[in-house]
Amino acid sequence: MLETILIANRGEIALRVARACRELGVRSVAVYSTEDRDSAVVRFADEAVHIGPGPSRQSYLNVPAIIEAARRTAADAVHPGYGFLSEDADFAEVCEDNDLTFVGPPAKVIASLGDKVAARASMAAAGVPLLPGSREPLRSAAEAEALAAEIGYPVIVKAAAGGGGRGMAVVDDPADFARAYRTTTANARQLFGDPRVFVERYLPSARHVEIQVLCDGHGGAVHLGERDCSVQRRHQKLLEESPSPGVPAERIEEMGRLALAGAQAVGYRGAGTFEFLLDPDGRFYFMEVNCRIQVEHPVTEMITGIDLVQEQIRIASGEPLAFGQQDVTRRGAAVECRINVEDPDRSFAPAPGVVTEFVPAAGPFVRVDTHGYPGYRVPATYDSLLAKLLTWAPTRGQALSRMDRALAEFRVDGPGVRTTSGFLRRVLSDPQFRAGEHDTGIVERLLASPPDPGT
Amino acid sequence: MLETILIANRGEIALRVARACRELGVRSVAVYSTEDRDSAVVRFADEAVHIGPGPSRQSYLNVPAIIEAARRTAADAVHPGYGFLSEDADFAEVCEDNDLTFVGPPAKVIASLGDKVAARASMAAAGVPLLPGSREPLRSAAEAEALAAEIGYPVIVKAAAGGGGRGMAVVDDPADFARAYRTTTANARQLFGDPRVFVERYLPSARHVEIQVLCDGHGGAVHLGERDCSVQRRHQKLLEESPSPGVPAERIEEMGRLALAGAQAVGYRGAGTFEFLLDPDGRFYFMEVNCRIQVEHPVTEMITGIDLVQEQIRIASGEPLAFGQQDVTRRGAAVECRINVEDPDRSFAPAPGVVTEFVPAAGPFVRVDTHGYPGYRVPATYDSLLAKLLTWAPTRGQALSRMDRALAEFRVDGPGVRTTSGFLRRVLSDPQFRAGEHDTGIVERLLASPPDPGT
Repeated sequence: MLETILIANRGEIALRVARACRELGVRSVAVYSTEDRDSAVVRFADEAVHIGPGPSRQSYLNVPAIIEAARRTAADAVHPGYGFLSEDADFAEVCEDNDLTFVGPPAKVIASLGDKVAARASMAAAGVPLLPGSREPLRSAAEAEALAAEIGYPVIVKAAAGGGGRGMAVVDDPADFARAYRTTTANARQLFGDPRVFVERYLPSARHVEIQVLCDGHGGAVHLGERDCSVQRRHQKLLEESPSPGVPAERIEEMGRLALAGAQAVGYRGAGTFEFLLDPDGRFYFMEVNCRIQVEHPVTEMITGIDLVQEQIRIASGEPLAFGQQDVTRRGAAVECRINVEDPDRSFAPAPGVVTEFVPAAGPFVRVDTHGYPGYRVPATYDSLLAKLLTWAPTRGQALSRMDRALAEFRVDGPGVRTTSGFLRRVLSDPQFRAGEHDTGIVERLLASPPDPGT
Repeated sequence: MLETILIANRGEIALRVARACRELGVRSVAVYSTEDRDSAVVRFADEAVHIGPGPSRQSYLNVPAIIEAARRTAADAVHPGYGFLSEDADFAEVCEDNDLTFVGPPAKVIASLGDKVAARASMAAAGVPLLPGSREPLRSAAEAEALAAEIGYPVIVKAAAGGGGRGMAVVDDPADFARAYRTTTANARQLFGDPRVFVERYLPSARHVEIQVLCDGHGGAVHLGERDCSVQRRHQKLLEESPSPGVPAERIEEMGRLALAGAQAVGYRGAGTFEFLLDPDGRFYFMEVNCRIQVEHPVTEMITGIDLVQEQIRIASGEPLAFGQQDVTRRGAAVECRINVEDPDRSFAPAPGVVTEFVPAAGPFVRVDTHGYPGYRVPATYDSLLAKLLTWAPTRGQALSRMDRALAEFRVDGPGVRTTSGFLRRVLSDPQFRAGEHDTGIVERLLASPPDPGT
């Protein structure tokens, strides 16, 4: 087993990883920016190292400072969490060069899956269904436009080096294509340092369904079922759940089987997520692989009883999986709400500040992952996720009722502080969502209609 | 379904019941004493009624005030929680007389099981094994002493009207019997208003194992497996877990089957617990039935996924159980620690005060049931339970490691405030406990030996 893990992240996921370390008897090292000096993980971890000022480039993306912190604390591994350096193949390689185990897939696997065009090609070869679209990066606007016409509109233009919902544009009308192509290319260059884009058919009415996999690098591989992440705003997830309502179990098994085939084809190791779009006829199409732990991983943990972060650490330690596919049982329904410090009435603009009142929900079948506490000052520098609130129940309806109760009792308040909590309760009360008949358009639909004054 | 439930209790269990009501769409009414006016449930429940000053006799045991509060708030049912009026057959009858559904067994069932001698007789008739002892209340010290000699020492003298670990004495030596008999009789008269006592063989090395049952009053009845409550001090439980370590599954099934036979024999309805002692040879003996929800019920909830308080409310609403024995699946291991505001270094004397720092544990597979919050003033008037901390994992060893992590991160502090948290960590690190080879003597053994200075 690894002895000391440096956690190259912040917020709730840093605390999540530190808890897993503690439970496994692994020493944990937190790193923190000046802005984060009062973060919960700084107190909780076995050791904490200051790595720079607030801005991410000078701290959580500051590779030399992180490697130096690992050296000073005699860490033998680095857990990257999500975001920041978690899908940066170069960082994984730097870790390897410094005799640090990177808790995640091998650098070359991250690189091959990070190139969305190469990933599509690998998945197609493994028999994973793709949406009609480019098989290689586009060389010109004219070539792209010809392909879009061949695919049929609407189409989506995506950065080859993108992911996580950033750097993409939907085009409904051929007349708009050239401009969207130029914009996406320019954005891709700026965001990812790589201007290449590709084109895919766009499904206006689809569900976002993703499969969690674990691969041990010794041939052991299992899938842990699905998460439905259709409640999203501008490709940012707000609420996730499992099972995916209305999707037959045999479809999930098929998706799981294909995800494992895809994982095997690229030599995947660690925890990973295969994202799919599911159309109203039940056909599904590969979107991308997330080579890291996901924000919404606790949904799967509540359903399966398997601790995904502990499994990441065991796999990175070289251990084979202690269970096979037949040992993975899924029970009941789980839902996660992201409590973001944002103002839903102001286009979800960040609304940070000092949280003077902080009373998390608790009680039966409730889980809270948060770095917040009473008096915590939410920095304006980072993303706005303050807490993940999860509930479980034997059925989806019960899990949603429990979530409504838990959201009602979770109090976060302070001067200028606003959260997504009230908006999430609107989602929960929406009849289409309750019936499980929503798609990825649900948030836009709710935002376009005024809230019921009675609620 | 019942429409409005008055919760005739306080502390964490009042909040627990209010949460279940909210999730079921049932209106909840909290009642509170002057001492408890800042309790979390007062804010959480749909309505809250002040019923009297701090002392229990004037508030939580004040039947006329409770009935009047129910009338004023148009409640159609009363949930008694545990302790206070929960096993008071007269109170159940007063509720029935006032057209209030009592969430619990019928008054006459409570009365017959509350009389421990009558309960023993009913269980014996149903085939439930008993320890050798009296089949009827003892009429004289001489009769008791003769019976004790016949049973063989050590014996335990218990109040017929007792329960919950109060009003009992262990006698090792025949020379001490007469005095113990007199003391227990006098205590029984004072504590329970009923001097009758009975004698049973005492097992010096035993495990406390209890079976949870649910009976719907329509013939539907299931058991939900066991809880091991062997970690207790003076018959007060400190830590509970399931499964009971080292007890074969077929023994639990046999205990479950016999508990259901016993429940059926007395016409049980609602949630109930059959307490057994298990000797080192694996033989088990009936102790008593608890006619209410137990403090440690969440252990079973984490293992089975069944919400016991919701089931109580459904049963009280007249609904049949929606599942049968074959639908009850038990997964993994769960453990509960009672965070009491007590000083383990001063014989667990109450150590109440204002909790200036209150940071509950959270994260994966952790559950917290508490009425505490930062700034909460723990009253000196009531029992010292401030929080129940639970963890779950696939195996007992993992659940215990997780509990140690959770205890370490749960911070409760304030002037004069002490908790059992540190002592519980000592239990967790005890090799005999870790191996699951402890018995009900573990706490006395730990208290008799000084803590390892290294821990």
